[in-house]
Amino acid sequence: MLGIELDRTGGLSLRRQIYQVMKQAMIQGRLAAGEALPSTRELAHALGVSRNTVCEAYDMLIAEGYAESRQGAPTRVVAGLLLDAAERVQESPQTPKRVWKTDFRTGQPELRLFPWPAFVQTLHRCADGLPLSQLGYAGAQGLPELRGEISAWLYRMRGIGAEPKDIFITAGATHALHIAAELLTVFGHHMLVEDPCHSGILQTFLQKGYNVYPVPVDSQGIMTDAPDEHAGAPVYVTPSHQFPLGGILPASRRAALIRYARAHNTYIIEDDYDSEFRYVGEPVAPMVAMDAGRVIYVGTFSKVLYPALRIGYAIVPRPLQDKWKRLRTHIDVQNPSIEQASLAEFMRSRKLDRHVFAMRKAYGRRRQALLNGLTDAFGNSWQPWGDAAGLHLAAAFDGMRFDAAFLEEAKRQGIRIALVDSHCIVKGRHTDKLLLGYGHLTPEEIQSGVERLKALVDAWRVK
Amino acid sequence: MLGIELDRTGGLSLRRQIYQVMKQAMIQGRLAAGEALPSTRELAHALGVSRNTVCEAYDMLIAEGYAESRQGAPTRVVAGLLLDAAERVQESPQTPKRVWKTDFRTGQPELRLFPWPAFVQTLHRCADGLPLSQLGYAGAQGLPELRGEISAWLYRMRGIGAEPKDIFITAGATHALHIAAELLTVFGHHMLVEDPCHSGILQTFLQKGYNVYPVPVDSQGIMTDAPDEHAGAPVYVTPSHQFPLGGILPASRRAALIRYARAHNTYIIEDDYDSEFRYVGEPVAPMVAMDAGRVIYVGTFSKVLYPALRIGYAIVPRPLQDKWKRLRTHIDVQNPSIEQASLAEFMRSRKLDRHVFAMRKAYGRRRQALLNGLTDAFGNSWQPWGDAAGLHLAAAFDGMRFDAAFLEEAKRQGIRIALVDSHCIVKGRHTDKLLLGYGHLTPEEIQSGVERLKALVDAWRVK
Repeated sequence: MLGIELDRTGGLSLRRQIYQVMKQAMIQGRLAAGEALPSTRELAHALGVSRNTVCEAYDMLIAEGYAESRQGAPTRVVAGLLLDAAERVQESPQTPKRVWKTDFRTGQPELRLFPWPAFVQTLHRCADGLPLSQLGYAGAQGLPELRGEISAWLYRMRGIGAEPKDIFITAGATHALHIAAELLTVFGHHMLVEDPCHSGILQTFLQKGYNVYPVPVDSQGIMTDAPDEHAGAPVYVTPSHQFPLGGILPASRRAALIRYARAHNTYIIEDDYDSEFRYVGEPVAPMVAMDAGRVIYVGTFSKVLYPALRIGYAIVPRPLQDKWKRLRTHIDVQNPSIEQASLAEFMRSRKLDRHVFAMRKAYGRRRQALLNGLTDAFGNSWQPWGDAAGLHLAAAFDGMRFDAAFLEEAKRQGIRIALVDSHCIVKGRHTDKLLLGYGHLTPEEIQSGVERLKALVDAWRVK
Repeated sequence: MLGIELDRTGGLSLRRQIYQVMKQAMIQGRLAAGEALPSTRELAHALGVSRNTVCEAYDMLIAEGYAESRQGAPTRVVAGLLLDAAERVQESPQTPKRVWKTDFRTGQPELRLFPWPAFVQTLHRCADGLPLSQLGYAGAQGLPELRGEISAWLYRMRGIGAEPKDIFITAGATHALHIAAELLTVFGHHMLVEDPCHSGILQTFLQKGYNVYPVPVDSQGIMTDAPDEHAGAPVYVTPSHQFPLGGILPASRRAALIRYARAHNTYIIEDDYDSEFRYVGEPVAPMVAMDAGRVIYVGTFSKVLYPALRIGYAIVPRPLQDKWKRLRTHIDVQNPSIEQASLAEFMRSRKLDRHVFAMRKAYGRRRQALLNGLTDAFGNSWQPWGDAAGLHLAAAFDGMRFDAAFLEEAKRQGIRIALVDSHCIVKGRHTDKLLLGYGHLTPEEIQSGVERLKALVDAWRVK
């Protein structure tokens, strides 16, 4: 304990050895200011010495001003002892963050409107009543109650008829894609992906040694008229709201993908990352509702609740389920239990439905504020891409060519924004487009952001 | 919503279409008994119809006895409607578990002695005060406060001087090993492992396409006198308490491993899965304390707290840290925030120290009960392996040869127990040994278990 190794050959008294090691640790900062020392009983037991010996060592430390003791409280290290352990000094809680005047990054839900007190209330109740069995190893597939609620939710919200036994809880969508990618390596490390495609997700596939083959995307989503050059490779798609271009894939292309998967006995990964937020028109049925035998459907609560919840899910075709369970066990065993139980209860009591309903209205207003702002600023020289859904907008600006130098200038001016080209595998097709995340910004923040963007783009255009 | 797609060409009234789809869903169980229907406001908005239309459809459902409504509560599906959806009927919360008379499985902490009320109190306080920034994406390395507490804890308990910036939070030890295995693929998918080695961890390496090379283990741990046949391959070891044989690796062998890693510019993975529980003697300093530049040290709170917490950590050598962060981001982004904040506070207030201290005494008594029981039952015909640490014991029985048929017979008699041979890569070296997990069993449960085992072994010996 405390790295104390006692020399019992009789040179120095045991109490002095303890005193010296601890004093040294305090000076070097390994025992930090304010830290409580172990109780004399614990330390005596750990070192195999009498409690008296430890008490005497502590008394010496207190007498010399290294530690202090108050009635009924543990003995603590005093402040101001550090001599040569600069590195050990309290780390700053976060590496200093750049302060953005406008932050248009994508994929950020509005946490300021999250009903944290209501969620915490649910959390408290669930934690208080958590059965002992849920503290132990409770299975890789996830809490049955939560799978049941997700099954009902998917039916209510999306018209998907998935049974709880086909739903696998994950630690978010990225995690689900990571498992799916491991699972599908049997198809020989080939993957067809949309181009453009979220650069982080591309990394998840590349990291696993996949050869990714880009398939072009138009305003409606992935184009399915190309010859099957890499026939048999699984396909990664975002049909409900293409990332980043925003298209909703037409039914005919969905059917073409399903036919492809059937013909080649392969699978489609359907990433439905933010389709809870759709502002106009009828929802289109997800591909998994067309053929659950050919589609791994991935959903997440990071956007509808909060990212640090780390709960997502996949609907997994039955022939893949055993292997999915095994993989999950060997990757990270299971999700923590508290969040699973709390989310299940939050869904059962319909608090999640109410939250999504409220956020859909709020996000819809923000989207409209962005559209209006851009039209006020840029008139007819810009066009929105994609459909009215999600938390971000792809916008094309006539005659512009955005590149790394533009990003650098934006950064200098305190504007965080992304290029569609950054998510492109084949570069150069979408250099006239910017990505604007608006979910986490108020209409006022959006308005001032658009004004800053206008000045930046105008200045860039002149160059 | 609810998979309702309205036909607006004028055949059937909208309210009747809504009524029919919902009625069908209730009969087929997609809307389950007791489930609340969406509010009329929500559904009207989602379908783009007047609220009146939805109210009328609900009234029809209520009138016909499909749903019921009480003042101030949501309209709910009545019970007893199911006709042809047997599969959708409430899944049993767990697949029916075999009831064991004695369960000697390994790696199970005693959850009945876990101070859940104290932990929940901490959890409540932390959840109430969680800053908004911790609900969003908060970084792959983990909460700085928690890393600070782990740094102090490692120094207090193990004499390890790791700085918070070198500590990476993970979702448990398996997850840390999964990341380490991905990280070390640059060494060409070769790994030296102890033989025997935990079969689940072996799977984590094999799953990633590793060639694993077994290195024999004796009563002290991994043997380091073999020629370097696979020089350069990373080494996976459990030096603090070899799994499963229980040895504590002598300092000279530790130094030999460090020399090997230095000579070949490779890394040691030090898995310290249960060394908090050590019952006699001075603790040996972990290998990471000998050379933090060559050792990836993996620890977990699954055993000292509870498995479903899913928090572990790794001390990562600096040249590997950037890649570790990138990998974690692409695997599952980060840990949930609530558990991290709660554990940090549980450690800061020294509740964890008190719990470990109490459990060490309880587990020590249980270990002694097992040793006494086995000696009472088997006299001199058995020997314990390994040191007085951890939550399990490897025991050798003279003249016995335990195999799959023995396990089958044990199972038939309600005894869950494991063979050391099941964890062996090269089979046949340890067929006289059984593994007995005792941490989760009371002395009385241990005693009756040993009596059952005695009868089983004696009967098996005669055959």
